[in-house]
Amino acid sequence: MPVPMIQRHLFGPGPSNPYPEATAALTHPLLGHLDPAFLEVMDSACDGLRAVWGTGNRRTLPLSATGSAGMEAAFVNTVEEGDVVVVAVNGLFGERMCDVAARCGAEVVRVDFPYGQPIDPQRVAEAHPAPKIIAAVHAETSTGVRSDIAALGELKGDALLLVDAVTSIGGIELRADDWGVDIGYAGTQKCLGVAPGLAPFTISDAAFERRVERPRSWYLDLGMLGGYAGEAQGRARTYHHTAPTAMIASLDAGLRRISDEGLDNVWARHQAAGDALQEGLEEMGLELFAAEGHRLPELTTVKVPEGVDSAAVRGYLLEHFSLEIGAGVKEHASTVWRIGLMGPNANPGSVALVLGALQEALRKVPQPV
Amino acid sequence: MPVPMIQRHLFGPGPSNPYPEATAALTHPLLGHLDPAFLEVMDSACDGLRAVWGTGNRRTLPLSATGSAGMEAAFVNTVEEGDVVVVAVNGLFGERMCDVAARCGAEVVRVDFPYGQPIDPQRVAEAHPAPKIIAAVHAETSTGVRSDIAALGELKGDALLLVDAVTSIGGIELRADDWGVDIGYAGTQKCLGVAPGLAPFTISDAAFERRVERPRSWYLDLGMLGGYAGEAQGRARTYHHTAPTAMIASLDAGLRRISDEGLDNVWARHQAAGDALQEGLEEMGLELFAAEGHRLPELTTVKVPEGVDSAAVRGYLLEHFSLEIGAGVKEHASTVWRIGLMGPNANPGSVALVLGALQEALRKVPQPV
Repeated sequence: MPVPMIQRHLFGPGPSNPYPEATAALTHPLLGHLDPAFLEVMDSACDGLRAVWGTGNRRTLPLSATGSAGMEAAFVNTVEEGDVVVVAVNGLFGERMCDVAARCGAEVVRVDFPYGQPIDPQRVAEAHPAPKIIAAVHAETSTGVRSDIAALGELKGDALLLVDAVTSIGGIELRADDWGVDIGYAGTQKCLGVAPGLAPFTISDAAFERRVERPRSWYLDLGMLGGYAGEAQGRARTYHHTAPTAMIASLDAGLRRISDEGLDNVWARHQAAGDALQEGLEEMGLELFAAEGHRLPELTTVKVPEGVDSAAVRGYLLEHFSLEIGAGVKEHASTVWRIGLMGPNANPGSVALVLGALQEALRKVPQPV
Repeated sequence: MPVPMIQRHLFGPGPSNPYPEATAALTHPLLGHLDPAFLEVMDSACDGLRAVWGTGNRRTLPLSATGSAGMEAAFVNTVEEGDVVVVAVNGLFGERMCDVAARCGAEVVRVDFPYGQPIDPQRVAEAHPAPKIIAAVHAETSTGVRSDIAALGELKGDALLLVDAVTSIGGIELRADDWGVDIGYAGTQKCLGVAPGLAPFTISDAAFERRVERPRSWYLDLGMLGGYAGEAQGRARTYHHTAPTAMIASLDAGLRRISDEGLDNVWARHQAAGDALQEGLEEMGLELFAAEGHRLPELTTVKVPEGVDSAAVRGYLLEHFSLEIGAGVKEHASTVWRIGLMGPNANPGSVALVLGALQEALRKVPQPV
């Protein structure tokens, strides 16, 4: 028996519900990865990605795997055995960066900040006199915190600035070139409003020149992938691997939707939804987790009230409203909820729904004595 | 302007046109990767994969990237610096194995066979007295040749047998357990009739025990991925990365379609289509490239007749019939065509179409003087 279809409100930390245009494009007639008609779609998607990254990098493309593979591609192409990598850690994805960089042979210099707080660019920049790479997370999915990448870019010196934009791209201001981002990776399943499966990636020419000549990963080798995505458009494509053509068509459709609405408008819509949600939660007497002034509009973290069974509330929301929100991570697993309003979900109706549903759940769910 | 939709007959080496059930499932309401409803889909897909692999391996799952990442996962999880890996090379994908294994630190012992010929299991087994791994390609996508994996399994000794089943899975007989396959990877976009984007993967318990404890790749680390796919079903899932939930729903639907038709029937359908195509090509006076007795039914290689412009014929087919066939690879690029009849395309109508279209193209395309 096939599993019955269930319509969910995906208000967790991602995936979000996709834009309808992105879903529809998944069923466009499939194209071969070398078909001239597909290469047009790929070029269009790469153009759309440049817009949401805020970059003119010709090497801007969707990697054929999820956002975490984007992180791996970033490090495996730039880290040689023994290279110093400074990593700013203020959440789970900063921690993951340390693991991934170490596996690539990096000497990792880790600079920790409390979960819920942004990074301090000054402390990060002073952590080592001459790192090859400084790495940081723009929008920490695990805590709902935004860090100041522009400030880090001003302080980076000769280091390459490597940035995780998984939860920021397509949702909040992101200006890779203006901010001095050399290498960036993201995901499709959050504010871009596309199903999970691709990692939007960008690397500057200068960073590409300093890459590892023959990285340990064949699949993520940017030297080979450049030809595949047509680097400078119009140049001959080379076969590297079979591109996930359906997913790329979907990404292209999602990016066109964003472009049609206007990127500034999309950012404003995410900000308005996040502001309304955060106000509403505080009006309910709940306390937000992320530090004031550094809260992401697209992903809100809120403390579970004392004595409330966090998992039971999430279960109630799923069962009664088919509404998913996320737990916290690590030591905050049962004391924090994560509520995402991303992509098409960044709208007033979603705010009203999640506030109403949460209110009912807090009334109805029996609490442990 | 969006790129207009174009309906192609994907008769190249892959991707193939997907089964309609697989396409439809891409637009099922998206589920979160930790949703109990999605875990049912994942479990079902893993069960379906066990059936097409012919394995009872509990570690059988779709990796979140394309088939080439499956190759990388196979080596990066099993090769320590200096391990001896014997690779049978009779085409492009055997060559790629050498590159990928070497990047993982392997001492590669390469055993070459002419393109168009199958491997000789005896020669492969005798190439080294005690390799850690023996690797071979079941169905060489670059040449249309099937090799005898069962025979290699009998001769493998203490080595782990690592097999590329990208173009065989779901199309021709594949019995991983019976044949002694320890590690296998595949793709979704050929005979499984699903869009490209996932790598069906399987590894035996014994091989898993001999894996690398902390592989250089975080993304493809099987030790972490086991928990993600629920290894022994019913056990708690652990978050590793965000699963590409739409693609996995599509894979599940494709596998159910195969199961409903009956795997033996699906194999027979591919065989019948391939036989008919190959007879038809020979009746047209064309010469097949792959060695007789070792030809894949799902992927036929045929020599371009003397004096015929290979690319012009492929262009004509694309323009007049919206029909894609593939070029040959490397030194055979302009002297061989590759015609795939995979998944839903393995049917008499497709045979008739491609034979008729090719006949017209050979008549109409002006030949160089």
